Amino acid sequence: MSGPRLSRRGLLAGGAVAAGGLAATGGYLTGRGTAPGESEANAAEQPGTVPFHGVHQAGVATPPQTYGAFVAFDLRRGTTRESLGRLMRLLTDDARRLTEGRAGLADAQPELAGIPARLTVTFGFGPGLFTKAGLDHQRPLTDLPEFKGDRLEERWSGGDLLVQLCGEDAVTLAHALRLVVKDARDFATVRWVQRGFRRSPQAQPPGQTQRNLMGQLDGTVQPVDLERAVWISGGGPSWLKGGTFMVLRRTRMDLEKWDAADEAAKEFAIGRKLADGAPLTGDGENDDPDFTAKDFAGFPVIDDHAHIRLARVEDPALRMLRRAYNYEEDVTPDGVVDSGLLFVSYQADLARQFTAVQERLAGSDLLNEWITTTGSAVFALPPGCTETGWIGEPLLS
Amino acid sequence: MSGPRLSRRGLLAGGAVAAGGLAATGGYLTGRGTAPGESEANAAEQPGTVPFHGVHQAGVATPPQTYGAFVAFDLRRGTTRESLGRLMRLLTDDARRLTEGRAGLADAQPELAGIPARLTVTFGFGPGLFTKAGLDHQRPLTDLPEFKGDRLEERWSGGDLLVQLCGEDAVTLAHALRLVVKDARDFATVRWVQRGFRRSPQAQPPGQTQRNLMGQLDGTVQPVDLERAVWISGGGPSWLKGGTFMVLRRTRMDLEKWDAADEAAKEFAIGRKLADGAPLTGDGENDDPDFTAKDFAGFPVIDDHAHIRLARVEDPALRMLRRAYNYEEDVTPDGVVDSGLLFVSYQADLARQFTAVQERLAGSDLLNEWITTTGSAVFALPPGCTETGWIGEPLLS
Repeated sequence: MSGPRLSRRGLLAGGAVAAGGLAATGGYLTGRGTAPGESEANAAEQPGTVPFHGVHQAGVATPPQTYGAFVAFDLRRGTTRESLGRLMRLLTDDARRLTEGRAGLADAQPELAGIPARLTVTFGFGPGLFTKAGLDHQRPLTDLPEFKGDRLEERWSGGDLLVQLCGEDAVTLAHALRLVVKDARDFATVRWVQRGFRRSPQAQPPGQTQRNLMGQLDGTVQPVDLERAVWISGGGPSWLKGGTFMVLRRTRMDLEKWDAADEAAKEFAIGRKLADGAPLTGDGENDDPDFTAKDFAGFPVIDDHAHIRLARVEDPALRMLRRAYNYEEDVTPDGVVDSGLLFVSYQADLARQFTAVQERLAGSDLLNEWITTTGSAVFALPPGCTETGWIGEPLLS
Repeated sequence: MSGPRLSRRGLLAGGAVAAGGLAATGGYLTGRGTAPGESEANAAEQPGTVPFHGVHQAGVATPPQTYGAFVAFDLRRGTTRESLGRLMRLLTDDARRLTEGRAGLADAQPELAGIPARLTVTFGFGPGLFTKAGLDHQRPLTDLPEFKGDRLEERWSGGDLLVQLCGEDAVTLAHALRLVVKDARDFATVRWVQRGFRRSPQAQPPGQTQRNLMGQLDGTVQPVDLERAVWISGGGPSWLKGGTFMVLRRTRMDLEKWDAADEAAKEFAIGRKLADGAPLTGDGENDDPDFTAKDFAGFPVIDDHAHIRLARVEDPALRMLRRAYNYEEDVTPDGVVDSGLLFVSYQADLARQFTAVQERLAGSDLLNEWITTTGSAVFALPPGCTETGWIGEPLLS
């Protein structure tokens, strides 16, 4: 494999950062963000950049940046494997340039390209892409089922091709998004765009997981070994080795109703304390919950339908990597804000790691009283590429 | 006057920072943001906060934060001076608390209140507020005219009461916005919400003005003496002394068309170089443009209709203070992004400082080829208050 040499230490360091609660490090000024597959020497030369090239795509194990934009495209009629290959070459080339702080190939605003601000551009292939490009025999996924309680809307669901843009600067991200949609224009139409945010690196207390708009610490339990939990190593099509599966579910929060619940009711539903995210049986966010503990009356301290009990995965290798973004959009005249979470997870095995857990949650999670999923999409993320390659090349060339 | 003692030095330092290009300093971690009227001792104790109390409201001379949200309300029928006073007491109290990192009075999510992240909450009174509250004899402003070329839409225009929320963290801002709209619910309906962004403090090169989505450095020329240019010292109603007038105009950029223009055409229209913002007659962003300079053929180097020639104000005391935010919203299926600028200016004299300039620009600014204003609103911002007072008290009590 050509391109930057990969260091085992870099890979492990990246995994460790991601596993450590995915804290937004803000390291792009004081040091650098880590991402599996990055060349340490290269990264040290370019503070503010997350290397685009590597065994895996960036933007997955990368500590989550402040801004996220997710763009889903529908391929135009007449798409072929060959034309899709041209699109992916074009998109890869611009992603490579922009993430390095260089102008895109047909960039009409090169002056906006100079500040990469930890930009990552990540590509995913939805189920429909394979059918439209005549590649059904290589299709590694189907649409997710509609789970109990889901109220899915077309305008937030599905999509043939996903481009995920994440970064620490909104102007940089807006510029990159425009370039991506212009690149894709001849090949695809925009199906939806979903934008989200996380706390700024400077605002977020180090070592604590971020809060979502319900006030919960969101994303405490993460996989320990990304090689097992996230990256596909075998069993699927060979072009997907080093890739992963991504789920994006748009979950609306009924914050008016949540406001009306008292702290004890909220903590009972979650199974954790709001103040510090500690399980109801523990003292710190990272304490293991004791699911066997009983209160003085003999009832479980963590309820049978508490979110953390239903979401728990005993085998750390089967945990999904979560990388959620908050969203906040329209406000009604009466002052009700449309807010929620773009739940984003990455996992090597959709059925075992995502669907099994989501079925438990959909059935009886106490939190369902306050949340409704309105969008659902799933994508296969191909592995990364080298400096001379492009994303999807093993499938499309 | 009770409350924190004000230092003359603090006032001047605040003005100087604001005048120095309004660079986003990110000083809330390395030091602190400065704002006119802040108590230095108090601010030094609370990194991450912009003092709420002072002679002037915060959020005007405050170095602009990364996120801005502007909420306009229409007062409900039956509003009286007395009920409006109750609303302003309620809003002031929550603004004071939230900007200090404390939970609001009826805050159902106190766990989201602990990180102020340079939050400022600023209040403005639109023309309709005075009429509805029976205060027409105290009304200091009327709606702005519709300027040539404007395509004003109701959904982005007008409003009786403005709340401007700015800060360095989107979760903090979302929480504050919800509290504000809930506080106002019994008194007013939400007319519009406009959200915008600027470059992150870490992404923005120090000493350079920020770029807008057209790639221009936006906001180079600012007033030198805020006491003369921004703050109302006399001549109007006494309750407005220490206040200012704010203009918010939503300006859509036709970036597709802008992309099609070459660099020379863009620079000709602006009168400045895109790369560094230097006037076409100079070498650096802060060089004075030479409006008399001619090229080899005898034509003015800076065209008669170039943006900077029409926008120029000879007397620095008459310059408006600009504090713009970028916006980026819907994307069409064909990949056209609705982007633009929330133009925000503050000035002591609307007619002389804003309207006079805008009339020149509306008539013949070359940039009009690419920009269209779709929203217009204007507000009188009362002065600040002390720890025991509330915003608008001299008018409403």
